[in-house]
Amino acid sequence: MTATAISRIVDFIRETDRLKGVTRKNKPLGAERFENSAEHSWQVAMMAVALAGFADPAVDISRVVTMLLVHDVGEIDTGDTIVYAEEGWEERKIAELAAARRILGMLPEPQSEQLLELWQEFETGVSSEARFAHALDRAIPALLNLSCNGQSWVENGISYERVIARIGPPIEAGCPALWDYLKPRLDAAQEQGWFGTV
Amino acid sequence: MTATAISRIVDFIRETDRLKGVTRKNKPLGAERFENSAEHSWQVAMMAVALAGFADPAVDISRVVTMLLVHDVGEIDTGDTIVYAEEGWEERKIAELAAARRILGMLPEPQSEQLLELWQEFETGVSSEARFAHALDRAIPALLNLSCNGQSWVENGISYERVIARIGPPIEAGCPALWDYLKPRLDAAQEQGWFGTV
Repeated sequence: MTATAISRIVDFIRETDRLKGVTRKNKPLGAERFENSAEHSWQVAMMAVALAGFADPAVDISRVVTMLLVHDVGEIDTGDTIVYAEEGWEERKIAELAAARRILGMLPEPQSEQLLELWQEFETGVSSEARFAHALDRAIPALLNLSCNGQSWVENGISYERVIARIGPPIEAGCPALWDYLKPRLDAAQEQGWFGTV
Repeated sequence: MTATAISRIVDFIRETDRLKGVTRKNKPLGAERFENSAEHSWQVAMMAVALAGFADPAVDISRVVTMLLVHDVGEIDTGDTIVYAEEGWEERKIAELAAARRILGMLPEPQSEQLLELWQEFETGVSSEARFAHALDRAIPALLNLSCNGQSWVENGISYERVIARIGPPIEAGCPALWDYLKPRLDAAQEQGWFGTV
């Protein structure tokens, strides 16, 4: 019984190792390569720990961290999609759910069901924990871009207006103090010409 | 006050972004490149969540996960050292502590002190949480190697005997069921010639 469970968990760990190969649109600061979804997941979980005191409303930070550790596992099957993509969003979300079911379904119970519930809670985005997690997941690409001349905005032609419209509401809803920090810096980045035009 | 705290946390997130550039000795499965300490930190935290029920004695899994998210931040200043390195271990540990103090010290209180305490708790390795975290941190390179013909053991010439001596006791101490899984597979790997000779 234990042996079977451990074996399934190890298979899950090996399968999710593939998240290290899912490429995102940001680059680690100072690097030429694109970051991957595994290191991104670490970074946003770390960010949740560091910013826990600024979640508003308050959250169970342990649930947030676990949610962020698994939030991108569906991308193992679907790949990462930039948050500014507007077409096919619905279809991708369906594909990601199927992927999350497949991958988290590799685990024994109760872990499988618990983690799938957390994954879905993040996707739905309604709970305080999901809203805080969303705020950080939306904020981190902007924080990286603000340190490298708007790299992923410029490379993908994303305009200031689209950034504000897409990341402003979720960041303000889950971590208003972080939005107070970000907004004037995004405005300054616009002055610098660090955005695209679409 | 809040603005200053957020600003310090963002500086910390940018600084720890450098963990994405710290290279380890294992490779992601199927990849040519070496993995980095950021994606490793995600993987071992994910593993803690999945294996939480097999910690023996039981642990506060939230503390384990946070511990694992920060356990390698000192490597931003010192680089990663393979666990089989035998010379200069003491000096490296001193340098890593200085690094952890510098990096976690970028955070405001109470996060700074809390995370440094967790980092030190991991290093000391005495608490149930630290022992479970150690077990996983020692096990994950072996799990990866068992899926790729002993890659880092072969490339670094590490013998079966050294692997057993170095990772067996901590894994057995923190997650005995995982050691029961691993030991026969390490024995089979020795039959396959997946180890070095030193």
